[in-house]
Amino acid sequence: MKKAIGIDIGGTITKIGVVAEDGICSHKTSFRTKEYTKFKDYIEFLTDKISEIESKYKNITGIGIGAPNASKKGTIKTPANLKWNGELNIIEDIKKKINLPIFLSNDANCAAMGEMIYGNAKGLNDFIVITLGTGLGSGIVCNGKLLEGSEGFAAELGHFTINKSRYTGLGVKGGLEAYVSATGLKRTILYMISKYMDESIFRDISYNNLHGEDITKAADNGDLIAQKAYEYTGKILGESLASFVTFTQPEAIILTGGLVHSGKWILEPTRKAFNKKLLPFYKSKVDILLSGLEDKDSAILGSAALVWKNI
Amino acid sequence: MKKAIGIDIGGTITKIGVVAEDGICSHKTSFRTKEYTKFKDYIEFLTDKISEIESKYKNITGIGIGAPNASKKGTIKTPANLKWNGELNIIEDIKKKINLPIFLSNDANCAAMGEMIYGNAKGLNDFIVITLGTGLGSGIVCNGKLLEGSEGFAAELGHFTINKSRYTGLGVKGGLEAYVSATGLKRTILYMISKYMDESIFRDISYNNLHGEDITKAADNGDLIAQKAYEYTGKILGESLASFVTFTQPEAIILTGGLVHSGKWILEPTRKAFNKKLLPFYKSKVDILLSGLEDKDSAILGSAALVWKNI
Repeated sequence: MKKAIGIDIGGTITKIGVVAEDGICSHKTSFRTKEYTKFKDYIEFLTDKISEIESKYKNITGIGIGAPNASKKGTIKTPANLKWNGELNIIEDIKKKINLPIFLSNDANCAAMGEMIYGNAKGLNDFIVITLGTGLGSGIVCNGKLLEGSEGFAAELGHFTINKSRYTGLGVKGGLEAYVSATGLKRTILYMISKYMDESIFRDISYNNLHGEDITKAADNGDLIAQKAYEYTGKILGESLASFVTFTQPEAIILTGGLVHSGKWILEPTRKAFNKKLLPFYKSKVDILLSGLEDKDSAILGSAALVWKNI
Repeated sequence: MKKAIGIDIGGTITKIGVVAEDGICSHKTSFRTKEYTKFKDYIEFLTDKISEIESKYKNITGIGIGAPNASKKGTIKTPANLKWNGELNIIEDIKKKINLPIFLSNDANCAAMGEMIYGNAKGLNDFIVITLGTGLGSGIVCNGKLLEGSEGFAAELGHFTINKSRYTGLGVKGGLEAYVSATGLKRTILYMISKYMDESIFRDISYNNLHGEDITKAADNGDLIAQKAYEYTGKILGESLASFVTFTQPEAIILTGGLVHSGKWILEPTRKAFNKKLLPFYKSKVDILLSGLEDKDSAILGSAALVWKNI
């Protein structure tokens, strides 16, 4: 069976794996991206890892790479959460040592490709994937193809602005990810404490010690601040998704990432606000689904999926 | 030279013409859509017109039709501004009498195709066309192709909601076209009179007697109510366009339709708000342009362009 190498370059961790066409992932490994302050050293280590895999598997079709701020030209452009500056010619640099087809796209686009080939978007031609992690990422597929934009910076819906006052890391006022993301949820916990007088375990926890799973547990335990925070987050997400439908009329919107582990706490208010705001002629034609990929491998699967979609 | 028939079905008027590949339009004719209360009678009259053209020109490649609420299946679905109800099988009905390839899309999508082949989007792969007429329509092109959505109802940006309180004809609260359209501008004139005490010719004109060209003339003559109305409209349009860029990263956004005849009055505040709100990494990469097509023929050219894009 044909195999592809999937590489997910995250701000903290780089994940690598070999993915067979049927989605079985093997030879998984990871290392700390942050350890390599020089991009040159990072590439050297990465190409060594790739060579190691190549020597073990003889039927590698290509390499798919997911990275933040990936451009269409095969470069990474000054990503906010990586240490390297400038425009990094990652494909060119790897090709100096590795003789395989290489495909690059941003991490949320890879998530969309992963859902399309291995997950809950199988058979769909028009869908949107929203990744709810530290920030909010998105991958949009129309007519069966990734919507990339003129340079590759389409589908930056984390920076889509709503009429609210919080600032994102990029300084965007009302940027969606300031509200809808793991970080956004933490900010909302503090906002709810500032607004209401309910008892809450979060009155004893500082912002930097707040963790997503604790917020879910607290909601399960009846903590009203946690429940109100999810209600608030889901309402904003659902209303925004209803607006997004006027752009691409997807068949489904798939939610993935850490925030989604809260299950009903995020899903119920999201679906409620979505259905309330959706225009009559879209009603009951757009599903909101959870990711069909097991979280751990999804980044590798998604990156490898780039190979199958491009070859 | 190859020729196509372009048909634009408007709520009031249906326009027909023969368009050569180089964009020269001949045999133009039009008739009142509204006169035909039964769809069957309308189709009979329309096919007679097509037959008449076919007998005069021997090298017709196909027919392109622009219509409101056109679906991917070749039907028109209960359009708000046409008299006929239900789902109308327009392609099937015409094919009973006419033996030519027929392509259907909504009017704003046709405008986008027209700009791509004959207008200011020549050579562009990623752009958005916004039509500012009675309502606000939009056609989005990504990777050189129309973004249609699962049924053909993508790019309904007139119904995109902003955080405002006006209702659209469909009852959408804060729908963009309630503000940014010829009708929206008229509503804003009344809103400005309700808000400010400036002298204005519009204090003597009723809503139903308000016309777009009079608003432009008044602005030229220093009427502060008219100027404030354009300022307000352009600000909302510019901010919305900046949000749209996070979706598809277009190379250009092209404005067309009656409202655009006001020239600088709408363009200046739109560009100002757009550039102010555009994210850093999109800055100076997205142009706001006016239509490159002469208004009168643009609907016919756009419909005919469907043929060249599909054959």
